[in-house]
Amino acid sequence: MTAPDAKPTDRPRARTPRGFLDRRAGQLAAERRILDAVSRVYERYGFEALETGAFEYADALGKFLPDADRPNEGVFALQDDDGEWMALRYDLTAPLARFVAENWQTLPKPFRRYAFGKVWRDEKPGPGRYREFVQCDADTIGSARPEADAEIIAMAVEGYAEAGLPRAAYQLKINNRKLLNGLLTAAGVEREGQKLAVLRAVDKLDRLGPDGVKLLLGEGRLDESGAFTRGAELGAAAIDSVLAFVAAGQGARAATLDRLANVIGGSAEGDEGLAELSRIGEALVAFGVGEDQALFDPSVVRGLEYYTGAVFEAELLAESADERGEPVRFGSIGGGGRYDDLVARFTGERAPATGFSFGVSRLAAALAASGRSAEAETRGPVVVIAFDQARMSDYFTLAAELRGAGIAAEVYLGGSGMRAQMRYADKRLSPAAVILGEDEIAAGRVTVKDLDLGRRLAAGIKSHAEYREERPGQVTAPRAELVATVRAIVERPR
Amino acid sequence: MTAPDAKPTDRPRARTPRGFLDRRAGQLAAERRILDAVSRVYERYGFEALETGAFEYADALGKFLPDADRPNEGVFALQDDDGEWMALRYDLTAPLARFVAENWQTLPKPFRRYAFGKVWRDEKPGPGRYREFVQCDADTIGSARPEADAEIIAMAVEGYAEAGLPRAAYQLKINNRKLLNGLLTAAGVEREGQKLAVLRAVDKLDRLGPDGVKLLLGEGRLDESGAFTRGAELGAAAIDSVLAFVAAGQGARAATLDRLANVIGGSAEGDEGLAELSRIGEALVAFGVGEDQALFDPSVVRGLEYYTGAVFEAELLAESADERGEPVRFGSIGGGGRYDDLVARFTGERAPATGFSFGVSRLAAALAASGRSAEAETRGPVVVIAFDQARMSDYFTLAAELRGAGIAAEVYLGGSGMRAQMRYADKRLSPAAVILGEDEIAAGRVTVKDLDLGRRLAAGIKSHAEYREERPGQVTAPRAELVATVRAIVERPR
Repeated sequence: MTAPDAKPTDRPRARTPRGFLDRRAGQLAAERRILDAVSRVYERYGFEALETGAFEYADALGKFLPDADRPNEGVFALQDDDGEWMALRYDLTAPLARFVAENWQTLPKPFRRYAFGKVWRDEKPGPGRYREFVQCDADTIGSARPEADAEIIAMAVEGYAEAGLPRAAYQLKINNRKLLNGLLTAAGVEREGQKLAVLRAVDKLDRLGPDGVKLLLGEGRLDESGAFTRGAELGAAAIDSVLAFVAAGQGARAATLDRLANVIGGSAEGDEGLAELSRIGEALVAFGVGEDQALFDPSVVRGLEYYTGAVFEAELLAESADERGEPVRFGSIGGGGRYDDLVARFTGERAPATGFSFGVSRLAAALAASGRSAEAETRGPVVVIAFDQARMSDYFTLAAELRGAGIAAEVYLGGSGMRAQMRYADKRLSPAAVILGEDEIAAGRVTVKDLDLGRRLAAGIKSHAEYREERPGQVTAPRAELVATVRAIVERPR
Repeated sequence: MTAPDAKPTDRPRARTPRGFLDRRAGQLAAERRILDAVSRVYERYGFEALETGAFEYADALGKFLPDADRPNEGVFALQDDDGEWMALRYDLTAPLARFVAENWQTLPKPFRRYAFGKVWRDEKPGPGRYREFVQCDADTIGSARPEADAEIIAMAVEGYAEAGLPRAAYQLKINNRKLLNGLLTAAGVEREGQKLAVLRAVDKLDRLGPDGVKLLLGEGRLDESGAFTRGAELGAAAIDSVLAFVAAGQGARAATLDRLANVIGGSAEGDEGLAELSRIGEALVAFGVGEDQALFDPSVVRGLEYYTGAVFEAELLAESADERGEPVRFGSIGGGGRYDDLVARFTGERAPATGFSFGVSRLAAALAASGRSAEAETRGPVVVIAFDQARMSDYFTLAAELRGAGIAAEVYLGGSGMRAQMRYADKRLSPAAVILGEDEIAAGRVTVKDLDLGRRLAAGIKSHAEYREERPGQVTAPRAELVATVRAIVERPR
């Protein structure tokens, strides 16, 4: 081993790869709480757990990045020693499609699975933009019923609730690709590229408003920087239909359906989409999903070449409202939809499929913003101060006694003195330090220092005098009362 | 989307990449149970959670594969768009060293962290040999105390217990690199290559026995296939010392130390190793780790260029014993040791470090072999049979009622008839199916089919007549007694 003697220039610099993140206890606890909550909901609904490997063959992943319309970019790929290209999964849906195609004969049908895990995207990293993140999905493969979509939506709503997100903090919006497709077909728009251009224009409603979208549906739009975006080149009547369509999503689900029926007006595909939404709406009532929680909104696009029917998007609502009194969009914390073609890539046969994916990091951020973070609760262990090498066994016995009582505890194992040990305990956010010096041992007693108290004083939460009255910062108790004394500090509400 | 119309030859074949594994509910439940158990122990000891990203820069990973002595092979590496080489982590220790070097100034010291997650090795896959697996580690950085090693060992022993592994199923063996190093130095062996050759020879004791090792310590060994392995070329006296050394580990820890003291005989490094083992032994007593659970064994090697002091190896004991009455070695289910040089690769300064890594998949296999598997317990949800499209809302309400009572339940969402629905429920290992037909609805009742019973009959556990006496396979109950009726089946001991 050469490193210790190496010249400084030979040594690698310790640094996190670009776009990757080290996460510590607080963040991890918040994430685990979300994954546990959502998994509980999925299992309650009878979804079974599945985990696939990090890699898929590149041809199996295909070009179906759900949130981007560029082929085969954006993945971490490498060539295996047999020449085959493998890539790290960029979502949990493409591996599911591969798994289902591979095992279709033996799976229970419909196959309903949930999964959570890391996914990787080789995109340009930036502040808050990472190349590795966690998703938590549920999908139903093999059911074309709109009720399967409704079940997925109901689980999403229940998942957010179980994770602790307040109802008023978000809305789940539901659309169906067949509506706009039908509308465009009825207006004589048949070209796939033109339909995509319309979808892209509608997707910009939040950012550009109806006027901007109108330009993008027509000839095109010149932005402030002077850049020109070509439009979808629809005729005036078609533009009006599309704008009326995207504006139809207000209020209760049934009322939205009525308005949509007027706009769509009789294309076969549009009617199919309406019928599906109608059945989703009925089932949502049976699932107990309120009107305020999940609504129909024809302006939701979500992905371009991926979804084939219903699409869902859960959006965080900021506290503030815009000039029209509408809540301002803040960001997506999850979404999904129906993707009936994904398994067919392998088998040639359509397998109806629908699913939802929680954006776990964003949800964690939303929970933190709503004061439900687990981060603040990450508390260190009780620290037993190490005074004397000859007494280490006594310290270990003491710590084991605390652990036996269910209290996290450790003996300080560094080489520093008393003051550094107290600083260590403070840095760990330990509730208490236990001191067992010669005096204490001789007297059969133990000293417990209340570190929560010190932190509260430092934070100015209560005055020193107030605290003095209530309890002292340090108590000396009989050795036999160690656990009770420490427990009183640890279990005290903070 | 072109796939549905594509010619068969255009379609990718659905297949798992070589050496990667799809894992279903049973396996995942077993793994989660282990990770939860071990994490609980780590947290009880005051270790904090840390998670680093999947990638590290290749120079940061270095060549320290802990279980193999080949440089920079065996990792999945790719070049980032800025030209830097990144590689997927092959263990959780190298990323920890990078993290600690990067954040040393602000970390509590000693820094004690646990982590679990996937690691990847680009090795030749084979039956039971995967290229992705899960590790679960705890490490203490910044404590040179042998008590820190003892703490790591105590947590490992407690972790196995908490995961449900019977005490008699394994042993944790402890050695110290300094012993053999000291012995070799005293025998005049100074060359690093020669020392490594001795370690390699000792590592083969299980496979080749003392006679084979003797040849490898001397001139070399010709195996049955005619291949010759060069030996370490020790002199006869040194060979005898090494063989006496590796044979010294029998019985109680203190007795082993006495025998080792005789063999090592006075080299400074050997004495240091002995003193460290002695302090580890004392601390293990304080931690309550029994003599039968953790013993000193000088034949343990574990990795070659990695560990600098104490090494630990947890070995599964097969039920059978060899001709000498010794339990037969079955395989490693975890291990670790002291690696004081790893952080120094970055900083140039030694940071004393020690840790342990659970081999989670092997432990899961061991638990399954000892009948403690969670796999058998993976039970499906109650399935509500879907008879009639017009009644779906009733079915959903019924399933929601069961879920509200904490019973996993779903409505069948496929398109098949009654018989296929019952097959589905059976495939899911559902405890019961609920039937709500027109008759039942009219009568305000509900029919519950006991599927556990059917499986027991099919498995021949009890005769049909016996079961008939105890309980019927199908009951019709008032609608209001749905939950109670289903609960009686679900909660019945199986």
